[in-house]
Amino acid sequence: MANTYAIIMAGGAGTRFWPASRARRPKQLLDLTDSGRPMVADTVHRLLPEIPYERIFIVTQQVTADAIAEALPELPTENILAEPVGRNTAPCIGWGAVHVQKRDPEGVMAVMPADHLVQNLQGFRRKLRLAFQAAKSGALVMFGVRPRGPETGFGYVETAAQVSPGVREVVRFVEKPDLATAKTYVASRNYDWNSGMFFFRADRILDEIQHQMPDLWRGLDEIAGAIGTNEMETVKRVYPKLPSQSIDYGIMEHARERLCVPVNFGWFDMGSWGATYDLAKKDDAQNACRTETFSHESKGCYTQTDNPKKIIALVNVKDLVIVDTGDALLVCDRNKTQNVKEIVKTLETKNRAELL
Amino acid sequence: MANTYAIIMAGGAGTRFWPASRARRPKQLLDLTDSGRPMVADTVHRLLPEIPYERIFIVTQQVTADAIAEALPELPTENILAEPVGRNTAPCIGWGAVHVQKRDPEGVMAVMPADHLVQNLQGFRRKLRLAFQAAKSGALVMFGVRPRGPETGFGYVETAAQVSPGVREVVRFVEKPDLATAKTYVASRNYDWNSGMFFFRADRILDEIQHQMPDLWRGLDEIAGAIGTNEMETVKRVYPKLPSQSIDYGIMEHARERLCVPVNFGWFDMGSWGATYDLAKKDDAQNACRTETFSHESKGCYTQTDNPKKIIALVNVKDLVIVDTGDALLVCDRNKTQNVKEIVKTLETKNRAELL
Repeated sequence: MANTYAIIMAGGAGTRFWPASRARRPKQLLDLTDSGRPMVADTVHRLLPEIPYERIFIVTQQVTADAIAEALPELPTENILAEPVGRNTAPCIGWGAVHVQKRDPEGVMAVMPADHLVQNLQGFRRKLRLAFQAAKSGALVMFGVRPRGPETGFGYVETAAQVSPGVREVVRFVEKPDLATAKTYVASRNYDWNSGMFFFRADRILDEIQHQMPDLWRGLDEIAGAIGTNEMETVKRVYPKLPSQSIDYGIMEHARERLCVPVNFGWFDMGSWGATYDLAKKDDAQNACRTETFSHESKGCYTQTDNPKKIIALVNVKDLVIVDTGDALLVCDRNKTQNVKEIVKTLETKNRAELL
Repeated sequence: MANTYAIIMAGGAGTRFWPASRARRPKQLLDLTDSGRPMVADTVHRLLPEIPYERIFIVTQQVTADAIAEALPELPTENILAEPVGRNTAPCIGWGAVHVQKRDPEGVMAVMPADHLVQNLQGFRRKLRLAFQAAKSGALVMFGVRPRGPETGFGYVETAAQVSPGVREVVRFVEKPDLATAKTYVASRNYDWNSGMFFFRADRILDEIQHQMPDLWRGLDEIAGAIGTNEMETVKRVYPKLPSQSIDYGIMEHARERLCVPVNFGWFDMGSWGATYDLAKKDDAQNACRTETFSHESKGCYTQTDNPKKIIALVNVKDLVIVDTGDALLVCDRNKTQNVKEIVKTLETKNRAELL
């Protein structure tokens, strides 16, 4: 379709991937999946056969805009939208939407987080076309990932009757459940994981924003008027005053005409080092070593250093994540990798900006 | 006493302290006890009030001789005896003895490993004087460390009646025991740990060598004749042919007139990273951090890096030894630190000389 666009959300800090991820090099700029490219570039390449560079926007932070431009030299630099401050996903998507609408009043946009992994690209593109098709007529569409288990780390979406082949009506969004609840969701087969990937016409989402988040809409309207003249100046003035809200809470929960395309194309949210380990190639002892590692009676470990001449030695240890950089070394229980953010918080408290 | 000498044995490789210890920087050149000096310098300073620099010899390997000279600028360089190959302790002590005898036919020598820690220096020096006194009359004297527990990592010495205050007769030497045997030793109160520290007149030990290890004696006799002329040339030719044997097995086990001075001055054999942890200062969570460390729900860990600007972060881990260098990182179970040598063996097998 000639009027399809993509908004890639690349604004996260990814503190759970410290010390590899830093303020100036957040996780979307890392190659966490061994693809040979940063995750944000993977996200773009996943879309390319369907959407050309000139119709792909990346919303990111000012501090990382240059690095993203470098990682994606073929992307027009004017398609990189640099937020002066992070305001969660609703303002980010809204800013993208005003650009899409400016280019094409009938434009339909895919919204994609920059830190997801998709294994089956063919399947992804098939569902992408289906979702665009559904969104074209005005629905707010999302990808719902068919659960692989009673995961408690994701929000869920409850769906109802199929409205057309592969497309279902959304009943409601639910927050991250406890394990017992997650099990009932999975057993019922009516719940999918909320992937955070959305599809809608730009005019349609702006209309929802106007009704549900009028403060945001006024800010976006001001920015829209400045596109092509003093946009960045306006953004710098307006953005800090925008409400910080997610598209899920701010819009989707109470929107009309919501549809879900259930998908099963090998989707992974790279949320922490544990996910990186899960997806990495393992040796016979279930060690996943991205750096040269010598091991003695050790198993279930993940190793990585950014010094290509360095080796790592493991002696009688198990289930550890070891990530080494020039100025910081992390050693973490592999089943507790979400706690890495606690170290980042401590470093923030102690004003150790050089390590963040 | 004016005729006391010391032979410091600094020839070990210390593979269990890899990756901090390397072929060119073995453990005796490391500051493993946080004293601010390498262990070999600690060993010298422990003796200095009793024995001046000019009467202290250090036997080491050629590859480390320069580093030792650098660490001890006041030690006469001719007192550093550089072995072309390691031949265990009997040849090392024998070579020292011929030097002592050359300087003073009645010289009495203390033999000290370079990698031991002594906490109570006053007590050490008191026992040193006592041992020299006992050795002066011709006995082969050793320090026997009063056991702090049924340790299975040391050899033991059985003693009999006291022959003079603080000096006992040696009954026999026994090898590293199993735990049950070690317990009976400790309960009997007649056994001490074999400290590896010995005291004897130079002529007396050379006489024992002549009778018990005639091949070694002939080699030493040849070297003795070359002192002051072409000694190093002779050593290079003779040394590789000398038998590789410890002083314990080769001489002490079957020698006559053996005495033991039981000691209790806070003696520690720095045998592996576990010992370093045991001796290091701990925080409330029993972590011993020689480098800046941020920890979240972690305990019993030892951390060290040779990069003063680097931090280490621990997340939900316990009882680990973490040693970081520029080209290698070790992560090891703190109770299995003796297995670090297995990594060194693997690196040797794989011809990774740059890491050894």
